[in-house]
Amino acid sequence: MASITIAFSPGGGKVRVRQGTNVLNAAIEGGVALRAECGGNGICGKCRVIVRDLNSTNKSTRIEKKHLSSHELDSGYRLACQTYPKRDIHVLIPRETRIGKRKVLVQGYERQTRLNPMIRKYHVKLEKPSLFDIRSDFERLTKVLSASYRLNNLVIDYGALRELPDILRDSDWDVTVTIWCNERIIAVETGETTEKSFGFAVDIGTSKVVGHLVDLTTGKTVSTAYTENPQMPYGADIITRIAFAMEKEINRETLRKAVIEGINKVLRQTCLKAKVDMNQIYQTVLVGNTAMHHLCLGIQPRYIALSPFVPATKGSVDLPAEQLHVNMNRNGVCSFLPIIGGFVGADAVADMIATSFYQLKKVSMLIDIGTNTEVFVGNSKDIVTCSCASGPAFEGARIKHGMKAETGAIESLCLNSDFDVEFKTIGKTKPRGLCGSAMIDVVGEMFKSGIVDSRGRISSDLKTSRLRRTDKQMEFVIAWANETGINRDIVITQKDIGEIQLAKAAIFAGCSALMKTRNLRQRDLDRVLVAGSFGSHINPENAKLLGLVPDVATNRIEFVGNTSVTGAKMALVSKETRETAERISKEIRYLELATAPEFSKELTDAMFIPHRDPDRFPRVGKYLTNLKKKETAQA
Amino acid sequence: MASITIAFSPGGGKVRVRQGTNVLNAAIEGGVALRAECGGNGICGKCRVIVRDLNSTNKSTRIEKKHLSSHELDSGYRLACQTYPKRDIHVLIPRETRIGKRKVLVQGYERQTRLNPMIRKYHVKLEKPSLFDIRSDFERLTKVLSASYRLNNLVIDYGALRELPDILRDSDWDVTVTIWCNERIIAVETGETTEKSFGFAVDIGTSKVVGHLVDLTTGKTVSTAYTENPQMPYGADIITRIAFAMEKEINRETLRKAVIEGINKVLRQTCLKAKVDMNQIYQTVLVGNTAMHHLCLGIQPRYIALSPFVPATKGSVDLPAEQLHVNMNRNGVCSFLPIIGGFVGADAVADMIATSFYQLKKVSMLIDIGTNTEVFVGNSKDIVTCSCASGPAFEGARIKHGMKAETGAIESLCLNSDFDVEFKTIGKTKPRGLCGSAMIDVVGEMFKSGIVDSRGRISSDLKTSRLRRTDKQMEFVIAWANETGINRDIVITQKDIGEIQLAKAAIFAGCSALMKTRNLRQRDLDRVLVAGSFGSHINPENAKLLGLVPDVATNRIEFVGNTSVTGAKMALVSKETRETAERISKEIRYLELATAPEFSKELTDAMFIPHRDPDRFPRVGKYLTNLKKKETAQA
Repeated sequence: MASITIAFSPGGGKVRVRQGTNVLNAAIEGGVALRAECGGNGICGKCRVIVRDLNSTNKSTRIEKKHLSSHELDSGYRLACQTYPKRDIHVLIPRETRIGKRKVLVQGYERQTRLNPMIRKYHVKLEKPSLFDIRSDFERLTKVLSASYRLNNLVIDYGALRELPDILRDSDWDVTVTIWCNERIIAVETGETTEKSFGFAVDIGTSKVVGHLVDLTTGKTVSTAYTENPQMPYGADIITRIAFAMEKEINRETLRKAVIEGINKVLRQTCLKAKVDMNQIYQTVLVGNTAMHHLCLGIQPRYIALSPFVPATKGSVDLPAEQLHVNMNRNGVCSFLPIIGGFVGADAVADMIATSFYQLKKVSMLIDIGTNTEVFVGNSKDIVTCSCASGPAFEGARIKHGMKAETGAIESLCLNSDFDVEFKTIGKTKPRGLCGSAMIDVVGEMFKSGIVDSRGRISSDLKTSRLRRTDKQMEFVIAWANETGINRDIVITQKDIGEIQLAKAAIFAGCSALMKTRNLRQRDLDRVLVAGSFGSHINPENAKLLGLVPDVATNRIEFVGNTSVTGAKMALVSKETRETAERISKEIRYLELATAPEFSKELTDAMFIPHRDPDRFPRVGKYLTNLKKKETAQA
Repeated sequence: MASITIAFSPGGGKVRVRQGTNVLNAAIEGGVALRAECGGNGICGKCRVIVRDLNSTNKSTRIEKKHLSSHELDSGYRLACQTYPKRDIHVLIPRETRIGKRKVLVQGYERQTRLNPMIRKYHVKLEKPSLFDIRSDFERLTKVLSASYRLNNLVIDYGALRELPDILRDSDWDVTVTIWCNERIIAVETGETTEKSFGFAVDIGTSKVVGHLVDLTTGKTVSTAYTENPQMPYGADIITRIAFAMEKEINRETLRKAVIEGINKVLRQTCLKAKVDMNQIYQTVLVGNTAMHHLCLGIQPRYIALSPFVPATKGSVDLPAEQLHVNMNRNGVCSFLPIIGGFVGADAVADMIATSFYQLKKVSMLIDIGTNTEVFVGNSKDIVTCSCASGPAFEGARIKHGMKAETGAIESLCLNSDFDVEFKTIGKTKPRGLCGSAMIDVVGEMFKSGIVDSRGRISSDLKTSRLRRTDKQMEFVIAWANETGINRDIVITQKDIGEIQLAKAAIFAGCSALMKTRNLRQRDLDRVLVAGSFGSHINPENAKLLGLVPDVATNRIEFVGNTSVTGAKMALVSKETRETAERISKEIRYLELATAPEFSKELTDAMFIPHRDPDRFPRVGKYLTNLKKKETAQA
């Protein structure tokens, strides 16, 4: 059947599929982020896309007419699950459709890469041995691989060697050989299995483990899954977990086993979803911050938590699957990508890869927000990075009604003029708390409305029932008990605001320190990319109001999603990309913030909303002035 | 203190020792085979050597005068344990002293090799990290190794990496690094430990596992040990064991575990003897025949026992100690040397190495006698080899009173004119049976005396009570019940002689087939080397009489002992030797006897004593003719 190409934007992903594939399935096959809560059954109406050339597709269906207004239909809106392109087309993903998919935290911006995985399979037929041809099994196999595919100087892994004699004979000398990096035979299988070659890319976050199962013959993601990092019971943040590991030798092993269990769970889920045999996964690429790197590999993590914060190694680590206890093909290879320094780990290297930040001509910034936040500043010529201890506030910890970006979390909100709150919850259920993006919104909106001053103090003068003083502190009611799913008021307290200020100050001070080392001002930044599973939900205006990100024009701020896992996937499907990861991990300079000049002043200044120095946030200043003028005019 | 060199012959071994070392200790240090039952205490008088230049040593001692006749003392005989050279000397080891040492089956002819082991240790002191020097531990370590020792592009084993952070800090950045082949860091230890670097060479025989513990800083053997191969209960010969392995998957694992247990036992013993910590062994070199190779590595051995007898691989296999479960330093490396083909394994490659057979200018033959016997014919230009299924007869199996070369075994015997038997037992105890060398003697002597004819039939005409017919067959009494340790007559039966004929025929037919492929006659052979723990006990005259070895002049037959283990040791202490092993294992041509022309005729002809074709044994013919003349003259 004929193939067609579907181009998605923004993102620039191109997916080649068989004609007769609908746009939703094409997006899934290509790993393009698209909301589709009902799984493509035409029930939810969430997979809204815009198709410019409607002649290239089927006519809109009855289901589409139910979910889309006639005006929308006329403007080119379609449901991806109902749209069957007849030829190459271009599909626009509107904001509302993108956001939803990001909520599952498993997707991110991803560049197209040339398919050239470390794993290749070769089908060969061997001559049978005889008394007059008594070459060893290995010789016989490598001779034919050399003759047929010009693969020379091959070695064979011990695991594959042990199984070789039986497999050659059971298959009647007709086998498929899996070779790693054109140098090592890692598996030999009966018959022709070249079509069954999978890889697994996994991002080990402090909170979540996210995985992509990838078809290595096409380079496409076939399924994704995620789970909570099973290390969570041993500490919500890295430092707590390392402290636990330092208590006793056995604890380190406990943490190692926990995270491997998480990886295996995600791997199993992706295999179940895509109906893939785990034995057909030959390569896993892992990324994670430096702590996850050490804990996952069972390396003593003590010294990355103590000054001068030195890791055991920065280079990538290749291990047999058996040795890491990952439940894939037992002769397969697990590769942890290289780390950079401090807590700037392989996940950050993957961010660089996924966004091609290291190729940018103009100086830009990338912020990957998490419990630890990595910031990069630079361009193709020079990149400097640091890691900020932003803490778990944005992930819900230490905030009275804070929670993760899960169903029931308020993910965005705004205050209208009479201090009433409009909010959106994940899964459209009654709210149970607020996640990081809503924290940014609530402080930004409260600041804009004058409920909170630049020091973060909640005003006690304003007349609204939402503002009240408990016996301990001031608090602001976001949702009344009867609106919630927890039957009590959801509030933000003075203490919460302090925690948020601390977190954002840590991030912004990191940004400032990097800018200073490069002698840059905000206006020198061409783009500000915000990554992280948390980052994709943020309202950029409120992020600037809060003083979380530098004050650049809103259209220069881009949310790139979970680029760690997509970067890992790119290294999985392309050897060249993996080599790039090795190279840039060495080239990127790491700034230890403890050595940055006047860092503690930067930190204190950044505690202000948006900043102690108004010159740093000129756009915010102008905006607030305009706002005030408007209010005065209205009054 | 000054050093002196002691040269031993035959063997050509040179040992450099401190002045004040006696000849026995020098021999032990250099791994030179020397009898010394009392351990050098002047009690046994067995360590007899001949020193030509007596002025270079101390005067003969009271102890020596007790053990040596004045004639012997005048001829230069000394006891090695009493002789302290003052300067470089040359020591001759007479036959009686050599034989004894070989009895423990652990020594063999060994060439001197330049010390250049795969394992090297380097002591380094590192700069401590600081906030202004945040290189990773691995970077820091490799940088100093590069600067101090020009070691570049080093990688580190996962096991060593995991321990690295703690060791660097516990040692206050003063460590010793163990590096394999100048490329891989396999261990890092606290402080200066460069003097503690050991290797282990082990020959895995079908019957015995023999090991040398070697100091890799000197290249000298520090202790030796051996044990019965714990696979014995699963079959006395290879074929039986492979059949057992073929029965069930689990049986293969049983055999693997058994032989590893044997290796670990020998390793432990050598460490106890030399007071060496097992963690200080970083490299083990293993040799063994093809079956031992596959069984030890857990590779399916089925197909090496079935035509066309193809091994899984011929190349050498390097494995982490942990993976092979050898109880040495857990980051150490185990290397199984390459095999040649059929059952001609790494042990035979080691024979080649130890004897430098592959460098010989004149065409020679090497026979390594065991349950499987390997034969080599050739010289530096071209070597061809085959493996003969000689069976376990010479190891005692299938022979009524056969036993291994252990205490109580008759090891040599002769018949005098009235058919009386003079014998020597190992350990000088009452005899319990006869080992291989005595089997050769008994058949040779019986043939010479006319008790047995050229077809191996025991005569029933001769008048001696030692010859008798039981209800089943004829037999010859070697020792009467009252002389033995088992209180019954030790005999050799007609069936036993048949078994011995089968064994020797298999070996000689192999020799003939090889000679034929090279178009050689017996007279073309410059030397015949006989190796094997069994081979070192043989009487060459009787071996020729039996037709076991080609009929060359007796002074051209050399017993080289257990050269497999010494070859393994040489590969352990010299990288170049190991490379030579790799090279010659590929160059030596393997002859599959099943394809040799008229091989079955060769086999049948070789069943005769010494052979059906008298022209093949002209010296034996002449000897028997002379013997007859002498008898006739006496009569």
